[in-house]
Amino acid sequence: MPSAHPATEPDIEIDLARHQACSAAERYAEVRGLTELLARPLSAEDQTVQSMPDTSPTKWHRAHTSWFFETFVLAPHAGGYRPFHPMFGYLFNSYYETVGTRHPRPERGLLSRPGIDEIAAYRRHVDTAMADLLTGRELAPDVSDLIELGLHHEQQHQELLLMDIKHVLSMNPLRPAYRERAEPEPSSRPAPTWVDYPGGLVEIGHDGGRFAFDNESPRHLHYLVPFSLASRPVTCGDWLAFIDDDGYRRAELWLSEGWAAVQAGRWEAPMYWFRDGPWQVFTLGGARRVCPTEPVCHVSYFEAEAFARWSGVRLPTEGEWEAVAATHGRVSGAFLDLDILHPQPVPSGKGLHAMFGDVWEWTSSAYLPYPGFQPAAGAVGEYNGKFMVNQHVLRGGCCATPAGHVRSTYRNFFPPVARWPFAGVRLARDL
Amino acid sequence: MPSAHPATEPDIEIDLARHQACSAAERYAEVRGLTELLARPLSAEDQTVQSMPDTSPTKWHRAHTSWFFETFVLAPHAGGYRPFHPMFGYLFNSYYETVGTRHPRPERGLLSRPGIDEIAAYRRHVDTAMADLLTGRELAPDVSDLIELGLHHEQQHQELLLMDIKHVLSMNPLRPAYRERAEPEPSSRPAPTWVDYPGGLVEIGHDGGRFAFDNESPRHLHYLVPFSLASRPVTCGDWLAFIDDDGYRRAELWLSEGWAAVQAGRWEAPMYWFRDGPWQVFTLGGARRVCPTEPVCHVSYFEAEAFARWSGVRLPTEGEWEAVAATHGRVSGAFLDLDILHPQPVPSGKGLHAMFGDVWEWTSSAYLPYPGFQPAAGAVGEYNGKFMVNQHVLRGGCCATPAGHVRSTYRNFFPPVARWPFAGVRLARDL
Amino acid sequence: MPSAHPATEPDIEIDLARHQACSAAERYAEVRGLTELLARPLSAEDQTVQSMPDTSPTKWHRAHTSWFFETFVLAPHAGGYRPFHPMFGYLFNSYYETVGTRHPRPERGLLSRPGIDEIAAYRRHVDTAMADLLTGRELAPDVSDLIELGLHHEQQHQELLLMDIKHVLSMNPLRPAYRERAEPEPSSRPAPTWVDYPGGLVEIGHDGGRFAFDNESPRHLHYLVPFSLASRPVTCGDWLAFIDDDGYRRAELWLSEGWAAVQAGRWEAPMYWFRDGPWQVFTLGGARRVCPTEPVCHVSYFEAEAFARWSGVRLPTEGEWEAVAATHGRVSGAFLDLDILHPQPVPSGKGLHAMFGDVWEWTSSAYLPYPGFQPAAGAVGEYNGKFMVNQHVLRGGCCATPAGHVRSTYRNFFPPVARWPFAGVRLARDL
Amino acid sequence: MPSAHPATEPDIEIDLARHQACSAAERYAEVRGLTELLARPLSAEDQTVQSMPDTSPTKWHRAHTSWFFETFVLAPHAGGYRPFHPMFGYLFNSYYETVGTRHPRPERGLLSRPGIDEIAAYRRHVDTAMADLLTGRELAPDVSDLIELGLHHEQQHQELLLMDIKHVLSMNPLRPAYRERAEPEPSSRPAPTWVDYPGGLVEIGHDGGRFAFDNESPRHLHYLVPFSLASRPVTCGDWLAFIDDDGYRRAELWLSEGWAAVQAGRWEAPMYWFRDGPWQVFTLGGARRVCPTEPVCHVSYFEAEAFARWSGVRLPTEGEWEAVAATHGRVSGAFLDLDILHPQPVPSGKGLHAMFGDVWEWTSSAYLPYPGFQPAAGAVGEYNGKFMVNQHVLRGGCCATPAGHVRSTYRNFFPPVARWPFAGVRLARDL
Repeated sequence: MPSAHPATEPDIEIDLARHQACSAAERYAEVRGLTELLARPLSAEDQTVQSMPDTSPTKWHRAHTSWFFETFVLAPHAGGYRPFHPMFGYLFNSYYETVGTRHPRPERGLLSRPGIDEIAAYRRHVDTAMADLLTGRELAPDVSDLIELGLHHEQQHQELLLMDIKHVLSMNPLRPAYRERAEPEPSSRPAPTWVDYPGGLVEIGHDGGRFAFDNESPRHLHYLVPFSLASRPVTCGDWLAFIDDDGYRRAELWLSEGWAAVQAGRWEAPMYWFRDGPWQVFTLGGARRVCPTEPVCHVSYFEAEAFARWSGVRLPTEGEWEAVAATHGRVSGAFLDLDILHPQPVPSGKGLHAMFGDVWEWTSSAYLPYPGFQPAAGAVGEYNGKFMVNQHVLRGGCCATPAGHVRSTYRNFFPPVARWPFAGVRLARDL
Repeated sequence: MPSAHPATEPDIEIDLARHQACSAAERYAEVRGLTELLARPLSAEDQTVQSMPDTSPTKWHRAHTSWFFETFVLAPHAGGYRPFHPMFGYLFNSYYETVGTRHPRPERGLLSRPGIDEIAAYRRHVDTAMADLLTGRELAPDVSDLIELGLHHEQQHQELLLMDIKHVLSMNPLRPAYRERAEPEPSSRPAPTWVDYPGGLVEIGHDGGRFAFDNESPRHLHYLVPFSLASRPVTCGDWLAFIDDDGYRRAELWLSEGWAAVQAGRWEAPMYWFRDGPWQVFTLGGARRVCPTEPVCHVSYFEAEAFARWSGVRLPTEGEWEAVAATHGRVSGAFLDLDILHPQPVPSGKGLHAMFGDVWEWTSSAYLPYPGFQPAAGAVGEYNGKFMVNQHVLRGGCCATPAGHVRSTYRNFFPPVARWPFAGVRLARDL
Repeated sequence: MPSAHPATEPDIEIDLARHQACSAAERYAEVRGLTELLARPLSAEDQTVQSMPDTSPTKWHRAHTSWFFETFVLAPHAGGYRPFHPMFGYLFNSYYETVGTRHPRPERGLLSRPGIDEIAAYRRHVDTAMADLLTGRELAPDVSDLIELGLHHEQQHQELLLMDIKHVLSMNPLRPAYRERAEPEPSSRPAPTWVDYPGGLVEIGHDGGRFAFDNESPRHLHYLVPFSLASRPVTCGDWLAFIDDDGYRRAELWLSEGWAAVQAGRWEAPMYWFRDGPWQVFTLGGARRVCPTEPVCHVSYFEAEAFARWSGVRLPTEGEWEAVAATHGRVSGAFLDLDILHPQPVPSGKGLHAMFGDVWEWTSSAYLPYPGFQPAAGAVGEYNGKFMVNQHVLRGGCCATPAGHVRSTYRNFFPPVARWPFAGVRLARDL
Repeated sequence: MPSAHPATEPDIEIDLARHQACSAAERYAEVRGLTELLARPLSAEDQTVQSMPDTSPTKWHRAHTSWFFETFVLAPHAGGYRPFHPMFGYLFNSYYETVGTRHPRPERGLLSRPGIDEIAAYRRHVDTAMADLLTGRELAPDVSDLIELGLHHEQQHQELLLMDIKHVLSMNPLRPAYRERAEPEPSSRPAPTWVDYPGGLVEIGHDGGRFAFDNESPRHLHYLVPFSLASRPVTCGDWLAFIDDDGYRRAELWLSEGWAAVQAGRWEAPMYWFRDGPWQVFTLGGARRVCPTEPVCHVSYFEAEAFARWSGVRLPTEGEWEAVAATHGRVSGAFLDLDILHPQPVPSGKGLHAMFGDVWEWTSSAYLPYPGFQPAAGAVGEYNGKFMVNQHVLRGGCCATPAGHVRSTYRNFFPPVARWPFAGVRLARDL
């Protein structure tokens, strides 16, 4: 049985090619600079608030990503490095048990100090030391790997920064915008089509070439029953039909735990939707009308799963998603670089749309280790493996993901109840 | 590639053969009678208490299992059936949303009425009507199927009744026994050995012959990497070594959510263990010393997973477990019929021990639908599918499971934090 | 300035006279027997349930009152007394810190053992030892005082037993009766009248003669502004007018904390009222229509206070209440002995009605020590003083209070949010 | 019996005299300016954080006090006034139900917008309109009264601003100072003496002359038993003896609810004390060693009451406190104007010390209406009366109270569990 895995992923390749052309120092500067760029529209007050235990203040993200380089790269590998502040190791460790105790996560919003200026200084302090390191003698491979990891880590926090500040701003009755954005031109809503896949034994997981997180390995065989994947994500228009058909009021459509969440949270629509006459949605560009041809966003796994049941079909497994993503060539979608900060209306052309970018796509797969999985050695081994329970895998990236950060094997994960990620739905069905 | 699935499962077959020799009425009477037998050692007070939202009072189990037959068999299919009490449909519906509203689960322990005598009368009322139905004209296949489901449902509640009353009694500082049991003869602790399995494409799931729950279907192909399975469950002696090696105090051994559970629950040992000089364990036979050669029991998935990491190996997937269980012939183990109500010391012989009975075995597999899964039609379709999130699969049955209730394809499931099931650990490793 | 305090309280005197005619052993037997009489209509299941942390199971009351005699009388003062069970001191201590650790209050409903038969045996064991003590040589005054305290303590628990089982049964959708009672004959609703009091310096508190709790002492001077007291308690008819005038929906009528309680508890009427067409009320005799001429019962201090504000008047202070109660002669009212277990309709005659019995009357006085208050010596000093914060005083007794238990100086107390006591309202106003 | 009330309160008079010399516009500008002065050392981040539901962000205090003038003075009484922002009425209403809905109190810390610059603009907008009003034609007396109330309201929030920011900064492991302050010169600890008071009928409450809050009225007769008041507040040195004598570990010293608070909060010392070798205390000037001659501060009513019991005496009632305060002439103490932001060491001279200023003094009196109390008319009637339950009265003012704000009849109040006010203890005893 031939492997269903493709030789190349051209569009992502291009992006990576650009990165590979950069020097390590240039790439470091570029990634670090983007974080500061994302924080720039935010006031000192904006950067301080923590709206729920799951979110972190903007200034915490800025500090924590610096702490990562300080702790895992500079302290052990840059001779004579002087930590910026003796308490920052305590304040800005997220969850690395082996590195020591840390400030409690739900209390990050209680820290008015250090202020944003001191955090900017902290970032410069780390960046200066990193620049020295990166432009000095050649680095040992393990150090280079840690830096690469640190940059991917920072990219993840760039997306988190946007997810989190969106939630913070949404709690404000003034509904302030992060940045004003133009309203989308609503496309004509494309009819949903199905893309078939023959199934069989496929290889799944990262093949060990370019950078990948440990949770994407090892590459392994996986058997798939024949199936079809929807050509595009579920749109807001589709979702309005679900709402109008009492989707949020019919217990039989929901997982038991999902139904409990509907009732406890009084869910009636995706997160950030609200009624003001017609349905409105709060975006990073402020509140505006729901656009029916945009992919629906900010739904939980529970909602995705209920929507699929209501539709008479199901969600894809992560294996199915990856097999399809790997066999299709250039797939388009909005990443952070497009700077619209919201999923864009689906185009009306043929073929698969928006597999990458726009919205993360919930899969029916629980987030579990691949056969033979081994976490990375050392403290950075706490990166992924220890979260492998009670979460579901999402695939593909979103409009807040830095371009070049994802690939077809990339595994994002969140608890089924989470709604603040930029998460949407792509349907699948058995053939 | 040859299928690794065996032709027969002899020991379970024998048991089923006995059942098939029974008439339906005899089988009904036998299962229903066992429930009452299990309740007999319990006082009215014992049968009333609910020790936590997860547990139910004994008398509630007795009533709910009767409600199942009343609601799904008698009301629709027994002409002229008169329900025992107009409110019992409300009081004893567990979670069937399509059947109507119901009494809140956490408040089951607030119901002093109906008392145990009225519940006994309720059971007799239902049994009389069922006897009429079962001895009358031949039943339509769908009705027979519902009765079969009702009996398997009742068997599940027999195990739950014991799990729950154990928890109830354990909350009492007097540590009362459910029934006095003899202390086990400690066996010589057998050295753990590994049973290898070649992997490859196997068929998993129920083949559609005898009764099975909907969640065991459809039978489907599944690819396995070569692996080994431990010859016996982890014992209390093994677990003492884990405790002594600070297993409950080393964050790096635990899933993040598991570590939070350790701290929130102040876990230091399996549930029901306590120190009184040496480690003691509360059993359905009262408190006694921990026996090192017994399988460890009442551990959560989090503990099972941490133990496996500490051991340098891992838990099996449910596919691995099933593939091995199906290829091995007669496998021994203690079921409820053995009436020791506790896992028995592992024997010292060669080969696989206690795959069935003694303790349920946590697998690393999240409880998810098989490819092509369809819930049963109607209200009984709420039986399994709607719980397919945030749970892990356990396999094999336990000392509180009625004999004949399980099979190699049987999928039990609990949230990873649950400790009150009779759940233990069998290790696996990559080859 | 003359003292406003009267020479005698005739009606209560009569009752006490009867008690004084009894021997100590007879009085002990009578009080203890009443507890068992009150438990008799209750099944083993009824006696086991704890419906909220504030309530205790019937069998716990039966055991705890016995523990009181065992711990404070028999163990120290009856030579050779053998405690019934080594663990009962732990299980049935309510809150006496100086006596040792104890079973957590919210877990009293988790104790299926000891069962009601064993508790009956416990009571007999204590009663036999007490009978020996009471019929032996003359007791030292401090021992007699402890026994007297123990009997008053048991009388308090008789009322609590009824309050608590009413709450337990009310949680059951079957709405079972404790004992069937006849419906009241509704009286013609008497017009409310006001009884004036001239104010001035009065003496308040117990004068040291017959038994009183430590919190009623010392007797002390207290200055009163002239005021009037309503001739009768507020009736259900009065309350219906409050409800109909949106009393439960107008924030301006409520204390801030009371309004929060209304919203959190979704209060719309007194506790135990429910709509089934017209307003119904759950009583110890089962559910029946609200009777407009009955005193309203099971309202919190918050509700009493809001009702008074709505009425344009106020609640009395405990000093006002006591001054009036002491100057009026025979005042009628329903106590437990009348066996109607519910406040009776107010009569239409002139003068003060139901100052004693029927419903406890919330006062605007916080429960605080009198000037010069000293708690009783020893462990029984934990009886009253340590609760003197965040509670309000109620006066007069209720239909579940044993006759002869209360007096004009008696101070009952509950948190302002409590609704399960038999508590009602008598209004007052400034002259 | 002669009234015990004095003719004058000289020291407070002086301060008031200064205020009376001011024009209304000058006084307005002075009070409003102080608020801004207090906020000046705080960064935008500092001003945004809410550390618990009881505290409010600094910028919220700045806005809310402006909203008070906007809502109660400008909108109804300044023709053509244009509110600054249509949503600020919603965002900055604290608890006035009659004014409309409002932003939930526990979510004040989620509002990053409006930022501190916009709030400064809001204050200027209100101040400009107020200046016009105050310098225009003569104001009607009810408008003047509302302005006077608004200024006293703002002074209360000046103290709250400091209390709250102290709590906010204390949550930060960096322990930042609000403003650096010099360490105190420890005085020689003065021996505690007692000041006797003969008791009898006294007049309590405000006599209707200068401004007072509604809860200080009406002035009324009150009978006092002879008593003594301690000459000075309890010091940290006194408190260390309590701690060393296991004061926080002996249940018998505590009210029942207080003991529960000790255990739930793991209290071992006053709030803001921590061990770092010797006992340290976090102050608005940063952390430093506990000074034994300073009045103890940041203790709850529960702690005050337990300390008094341990000392063999008691707390004063508010009537006792007021009677003494009124008969003594000039009494010294540190107010906000002294700018030490912490209670100062007690002096060693004779007589009463620090009755006013330094620390609020818990009284044993529950916060209840005086006989004949009537709340102010209109929405401002929600100012005091609706909190009259489950709180205790504190008297005298503290080091964060603006000078001139308090008087001998002033009634402050907090729940017994509150520790973040600048609250201490003065003992009393019966004669």
